[in-house]
Formats: sequence, structure tokens, C-alpha cells
Amino acid sequence: MKIYGDIQSGNCYKIKLLCSLLGIQHEWIHVDIMAGGTGTDAFLAKNPNGKIPLLELDDGRCLSESNAILNFLADGSDLLPTDAYGLAKVQQWQFFEQYSHEPYIAVARFIARYLGLPDDRRTEYEAKQAGGHKALTVMEQQLSAAPYLAGDSLSTADISLYGYTHVAHEGGFDLSLYPAVLAWIDRIAKHPNYTGMV
Amino acid sequence: MKIYGDIQSGNCYKIKLLCSLLGIQHEWIHVDIMAGGTGTDAFLAKNPNGKIPLLELDDGRCLSESNAILNFLADGSDLLPTDAYGLAKVQQWQFFEQYSHEPYIAVARFIARYLGLPDDRRTEYEAKQAGGHKALTVMEQQLSAAPYLAGDSLSTADISLYGYTHVAHEGGFDLSLYPAVLAWIDRIAKHPNYTGMV
Repeated sequence: MKIYGDIQSGNCYKIKLLCSLLGIQHEWIHVDIMAGGTGTDAFLAKNPNGKIPLLELDDGRCLSESNAILNFLADGSDLLPTDAYGLAKVQQWQFFEQYSHEPYIAVARFIARYLGLPDDRRTEYEAKQAGGHKALTVMEQQLSAAPYLAGDSLSTADISLYGYTHVAHEGGFDLSLYPAVLAWIDRIAKHPNYTGMV
Repeated sequence: MKIYGDIQSGNCYKIKLLCSLLGIQHEWIHVDIMAGGTGTDAFLAKNPNGKIPLLELDDGRCLSESNAILNFLADGSDLLPTDAYGLAKVQQWQFFEQYSHEPYIAVARFIARYLGLPDDRRTEYEAKQAGGHKALTVMEQQLSAAPYLAGDSLSTADISLYGYTHVAHEGGFDLSLYPAVLAWIDRIAKHPNYTGMV
């Protein structure tokens, strides 16, 4: 299988981390979004929404959306519950990530790290801070009560949220305010076959 | 089971539609977000993220995020594929909905319909139009090739996208530009036990 992505993107790194944890062999194809790599005709034929990461199976079928890819690759592994409620709880956290977390923390990080915090994006950057802290507060509450987001063991929900949370400081978020989140970040990084973003 | 929601919210209506299609008995509890109904201590104890819809099972367990609730309730029904790729494809469309569709189409509709398009939100309203049309274009491409988003039969992916798409005109989107989307809307509304938003 081929995975199209940019390892510095949290959404892409999630897939790399999962593949490492589960020992999934793949070909990683770097796509440079800043150079228009997701807007070519060849890429849009694989993902009409023009986004990375993108999974291409050996038979040519494609799958987009980072969290859908994670759950597909984790099928049958210990990283995905098999009961309906457990599986839904994993998805709950993943939808939370895409709606209430990523649009604040990842976008603030993108403006600061990729664009260099230009003056014309500073207002937007500052407007992202409140939503990011709200998301981190929701995570802190859950992680004060359980070691992982969906309960007692690591799941794809954790990998989804780990992607941008562990680099949230690059978007201006002080994680020392969230000790349970910091402990969870350490816990994940200690898993066998863990791989970092760099 | 109890479902907390506001039927005029597309995210809540999705759950109502699914329950109707599958004949799932439930108690519907109206929550008025404009009156702060999602910010009370009692509500936040059930969903720390303070959003509707929310599902509360008879044993007290709660589940939030509309698309996670849909997939939980549809488990074992014809509305959810059982193979890993089919299931992931449903999720792909649902994550697309929450990241690339809802933040444009639902927010434009909210500003126009709930807030009455006040002057201080007009710039934001207009900024939502391009993203909404991009999402509708991605849907049009898929629905020109297949009758439903995840293939040949209705799935929770369709219910997720139907929620706000069928009322997109209330956010200023002219759906006559998207004939395959319009045909899909008609197709869904003809299903036995379909129920409308009103």
C-alpha cells in the first residue's frame, strides 16, 4: 500500500505512528502541500477533496480522511474495540478531534510554524487560542479519570488526538496547564515501536 | 434511551431520521442552545464538550458527536457495511462532513436562519460560501458516479451528509447547480419511514 502525506502534518503523522505501532509495511510518498502537491490532476483523481493523508491500496482503491484511514488499518488489532459502544466511543473522540480540536490547535500551529505568524494572520491565530484551550480542557477532564481517551487501553482515538496535541506548543498552547494530558503524552511515547514526528 | 437535541439542527435531525428509518424507540428531549441549554452543569456532566446531539442509554452511559451516535445506533442494520473498507468509506464521508462541509454550510445557515444575518456576521457568512460550494462539488462528483455516497445502498454516510445538505439553501447555497445532489436528496426522501426536519 501507498500512503501520501507530509510527516510534519499531524493528520499524516497519525498514520505513520499507527503503522509503526502495528508493524504495517507501506510506501510513504511525500506530498508538499505548500508547493501545490494536493492540487494536481493526478492527486485529485485519487482524492477529489484535495487533502492528505491519502491511502492507496494495492488494488487501486483509495481512502482519505486521517481518522477513517486509522480505523481501517487498525481493524482486527488491539487498537480498536470490537463492541459497538466501544467503537462508537473511539469515533466520538475522533469527531471531537476533527471539529473541536484540529481547527483550533492545528490551524494555530500551521499559521505559526508553516507561515511564520505573518501580521495578516495574527488576529486569526489569536482567535484560535480559546477554542484550543477548550478542547484541551475536555481532554484533561477525561484523562484525569482514565489512562486513555476511550478507557483503559490505547486506541486509535488516542493516536488521533496525539497527532496535534503533542506539538500544540508550536501553536502557542502551554501544555503545562494540563498535567493529565502531559502524562498521557508520555504514556503514548513509551509504547513499543513508537515513532516520533521528526 | 434518551436523545437530547434540537430538531432544527442538522446534526440532531440526523439522529431523528435514522431512528425513524430503523424504527428505534427513544425519548426526545428538546435542548435550546440559544437559551444556554448545553451549558448547564447537568448537561455538561453528560457531555463535557457542551454540544448536542447527545445519546443517553438506559444504563446512564452517554455518547456524543452526531456521526458516532449514528454508527452506534445503525450497528447490525443495513445502513452500515460490515467489511472494513466499506465501514471506513462511510467514516471517510462522515469526517469529510464534519471538517469540509458542516463548518461552511451549517454555519452559513446558522448565521442566516438562527441569527437573522446580522451585519457583524455578514463577512463571515460570505466567507463560508466558497468552502460550502467546494464540498457540494465533491459530493456532486461522487453522486454522479453512484446513487449513494458509499456505493449502491443507503448508509449512515448519506444520513450524515443529508442533514445539512437538504437545507443548504437556507445558508444561501443554490442546489440547482448540483443536479446529482438534488436527485440524491429526492432518493433519500422516498425511503420508507423517512421523516422530515419539521
